[in-house]
Amino acid sequence: MTDLVVASKRMRILGISGSLRTASVNSMLLRATARLAPRDIDVSIFNGLGGLPFFNPDLEGNCPANVVALQRSVAEADALLFASPEYAHGVTGAIKNALDWLVGFEPFANKIVAVLNASPRAHHADDALRETLRTMAAMIIESASITIPLLGAGFDESAMIATPSIAAALRESLRAVQLAVVSRQGTLPAVFSLR
Amino acid sequence: MTDLVVASKRMRILGISGSLRTASVNSMLLRATARLAPRDIDVSIFNGLGGLPFFNPDLEGNCPANVVALQRSVAEADALLFASPEYAHGVTGAIKNALDWLVGFEPFANKIVAVLNASPRAHHADDALRETLRTMAAMIIESASITIPLLGAGFDESAMIATPSIAAALRESLRAVQLAVVSRQGTLPAVFSLR
Repeated sequence: MTDLVVASKRMRILGISGSLRTASVNSMLLRATARLAPRDIDVSIFNGLGGLPFFNPDLEGNCPANVVALQRSVAEADALLFASPEYAHGVTGAIKNALDWLVGFEPFANKIVAVLNASPRAHHADDALRETLRTMAAMIIESASITIPLLGAGFDESAMIATPSIAAALRESLRAVQLAVVSRQGTLPAVFSLR
Repeated sequence: MTDLVVASKRMRILGISGSLRTASVNSMLLRATARLAPRDIDVSIFNGLGGLPFFNPDLEGNCPANVVALQRSVAEADALLFASPEYAHGVTGAIKNALDWLVGFEPFANKIVAVLNASPRAHHADDALRETLRTMAAMIIESASITIPLLGAGFDESAMIATPSIAAALRESLRAVQLAVVSRQGTLPAVFSLR
């Protein structure tokens, strides 16, 4: 019965945008993805990045409340969906700081993640974000980690949703994440049947 | 007379550590460098990294007070000296966030900088920091940007100062920065003499 329970549970994806800009293309991309999600996938956006303190190893034993909220959201999610801009050929300080707080957080290890990139020309931040995620033992789903040329297109989230090629790409990304989550969960009953 | 005035002025170097840890090896390295500085070089440490807000492009036209303090310190310095740890194969969120606020700050362009690396094994953060600094049009002084194998050595700043090879390397780094600053300033009178 275990696999049936797993299959009927609504999958939870946590979206994390690396930009604090109100009109951030990356934040809009995540909100568009949330609105495009099928009924069996719940995509929520973590909005507390700007309220985190800066990572300080001295505080790791007694994490501030905002850090605990981030960690709880990550622990409760079946998968994470990142979208973050590139600043001066690097990741944003905001996204890296959030990850710095998750380096020593055990539930992050083996987390299924996808990385959306809104700018095909920007590869430094995308490369660096993936390198850090791999170092943190995240499982990056390549088929879900897509590049969508949005920078300069002037699209808001409604325009993204209304553009068939973009909507289809985001839906496929979600399905690829879902497949990875279900595949992992699906291995459990097989192991149990060996008894 | 201009070059004499320039030469007699005390050179100002601003040290920026990418770690907020109290016992940070990088912060100690900068403080050791400050204590080793010859009389004609003043090395001060910027201690406000943890008090900066996260970079938000929406705020760039009306920068928060702590950001203005960082920008003023950078503008007043003849050169910058960075020392920053590597977290999960990346720069620290704290150092990148400080740089994010300086990307659009005009006095940063062409700033003479050196990057100290306290861990020979860590090249990802060092590479990424240099890539960002180059992208921001900083002039990285390679002869001043040294790697000192301090991680795990258990050295505090007094031990660094008391170790002849480390003290000599830090003094040489300062001299290389000074040479770069003086070389640049030294070109001014030559241009003026063309009148």
